[in-house]
Amino acid sequence: MRLAVIGVGLIGGSIGLAARERIPGVTVSGFDPGAGVLDAAGERGAIDVPASSLAEALEGAEACFVCAPVGSLPELIGKALAAADPGCVVTDAGSTKRLIAATTDDERFVGGHPVAGSESAGVQNARGDLFEGAAWYLTPGERSSGLLYERLHRLVTQLGAHPIAIDAETHDRLLATVSHLPHVLANVLVSQAARALDSAGEALPRIGPSFRDATRVAGANPGIWTDIYATNGELIAAEIDQLREQLSRVAEDLRRGERQAIDSWNQRAREDRRRLLEAELAGGPVHELRVSVPNRPGVLAGVALALGKGGVNIVDMALAPAPDNRSGAITFWITGDGAAKRARELMDELDFPVLKVP
Amino acid sequence: MRLAVIGVGLIGGSIGLAARERIPGVTVSGFDPGAGVLDAAGERGAIDVPASSLAEALEGAEACFVCAPVGSLPELIGKALAAADPGCVVTDAGSTKRLIAATTDDERFVGGHPVAGSESAGVQNARGDLFEGAAWYLTPGERSSGLLYERLHRLVTQLGAHPIAIDAETHDRLLATVSHLPHVLANVLVSQAARALDSAGEALPRIGPSFRDATRVAGANPGIWTDIYATNGELIAAEIDQLREQLSRVAEDLRRGERQAIDSWNQRAREDRRRLLEAELAGGPVHELRVSVPNRPGVLAGVALALGKGGVNIVDMALAPAPDNRSGAITFWITGDGAAKRARELMDELDFPVLKVP
Repeated sequence: MRLAVIGVGLIGGSIGLAARERIPGVTVSGFDPGAGVLDAAGERGAIDVPASSLAEALEGAEACFVCAPVGSLPELIGKALAAADPGCVVTDAGSTKRLIAATTDDERFVGGHPVAGSESAGVQNARGDLFEGAAWYLTPGERSSGLLYERLHRLVTQLGAHPIAIDAETHDRLLATVSHLPHVLANVLVSQAARALDSAGEALPRIGPSFRDATRVAGANPGIWTDIYATNGELIAAEIDQLREQLSRVAEDLRRGERQAIDSWNQRAREDRRRLLEAELAGGPVHELRVSVPNRPGVLAGVALALGKGGVNIVDMALAPAPDNRSGAITFWITGDGAAKRARELMDELDFPVLKVP
Repeated sequence: MRLAVIGVGLIGGSIGLAARERIPGVTVSGFDPGAGVLDAAGERGAIDVPASSLAEALEGAEACFVCAPVGSLPELIGKALAAADPGCVVTDAGSTKRLIAATTDDERFVGGHPVAGSESAGVQNARGDLFEGAAWYLTPGERSSGLLYERLHRLVTQLGAHPIAIDAETHDRLLATVSHLPHVLANVLVSQAARALDSAGEALPRIGPSFRDATRVAGANPGIWTDIYATNGELIAAEIDQLREQLSRVAEDLRRGERQAIDSWNQRAREDRRRLLEAELAGGPVHELRVSVPNRPGVLAGVALALGKGGVNIVDMALAPAPDNRSGAITFWITGDGAAKRARELMDELDFPVLKVP
């Protein structure tokens, strides 16, 4: 299999490394406009073939990963789709997905977002295990090809990640809550500490571990984050509004010395955190679920999205077209008893006959 | 030397363990009203002598550490002072200091706050290295004895910590910024994520590392934290107000898509964080500074506070009374060239003759 990586930085380079380490018989071609980047990528072992243009990198490729700052993705994805073969799946690694979803409805395109990174950018910091155990969101469009979605799902799994299907709007809203908002808070927290200490003309106290943890991502890679803030600004602002309201209530309780209210608030937070982490760690036995579906664009993507929305973790999937080519069977391998039951119910709701029950 | 530990939980037990491991010839007596706590402390090696009352624990003690939730400290410290010898220094380990400072002006009392802890309470989780490298704030009152302050400073150093003199008001304000506010934010952040996911009826996404870091302390030990919130409520509420204002400006920039403003805001946060962490790691060669001071209550504490406020890290100190007993010399060992220079200037400002220049 031939993979093209457009933009060979930390993420693109790590995709190349992971693919070359983990996928037998793969050939990775890479293109990057940055001076010396392809040489460095070659030395690092991240690519097999340096290409002198985007089109050259895509020659004969069955999958293409476009890895660049969100702002430049619409243009690059357009170019990649123009150069790609009809059977090539094109994806990206951008941290926000609505803007990109709005730019193309090509059936070969499936958006992507590996939730992995590092404070250090550049191919010299790329690692073959960067995606090990990481979530990798996939945001298929309504017209995305099931065949190509399945290929991408498998590739992402081979790179070590857990693919999760999600629609672009939900992705951006969830990430605003669990990623972008924490980054905003880290920024305002360090500013506040810096100003408080400056204005008091005092020595800096030793910073406690809670402060260090809470501000680890303050001022995160400005190149990437300014794009994230710019492309998801409204949803992040809505999260900020909600948080400000919560804070206002907490400040009121603190001023009034409402001991009971403060105590239950803190207990609730304890409980919320436990629940969030437990859900994340949920696992269980793997079940097989086979479903009969009509053979038309968008069906597999729709099923994957429904399962993703239902919290079903798809370990693997396989497509088998029926002899008449008008229908087909999808086999899903799913983690956890509850998830398998939920998957069964979701298939019933979608009116797809279940051929093999977990 | 005999030490008394009143309240032998995680902190008290760790003080006992550290003292017994690190201070030659020490005997630790302990008192705790909890059933079975003293037996557990003995088995753990945290105390030598279980005492059947607070007064018994204090018999012959030269230093007493009162380790209990902030709410019960005023009463316990009063009892400890009533039972302690005239030459015994009494301190505590409470996380807020104004309430306690207001309850006594006994010259044997010096407030304390080791910035160390763990998610797991109880003497069974005590560790002899819990304070290794940790900041340990000391909040002497205006009448605190210099002799006893020096003894406590040395003890804290022997336990592995870095003592920092600070007045109670400044302590509570600084901690509101760098510890209590991050805890509040962790709480509201998990609540918001939990509610967002509940209301959407959606699967929990895999939580990114930024969320995990930012919420590590959410719902921290409610027994301790409800006390902290209750005793430092006003200052924390003031910090919340400031943060809400900052957030409001950020939300506005995000809504307007002010790319340039967002970018500089993020860059400033990056710079602020670098500066905060660098300051924390500042070190350098150790200098010796000897100062002549009048021999009266509160002088040494006042000097220590002035140096603490000036960001001077006192590694060690020694007191030597002059033959006439009306004056004395304090020797400070100080880390860093800049700090030593600042210390010299501060002594000039206080009009204390410097006998040995760094």
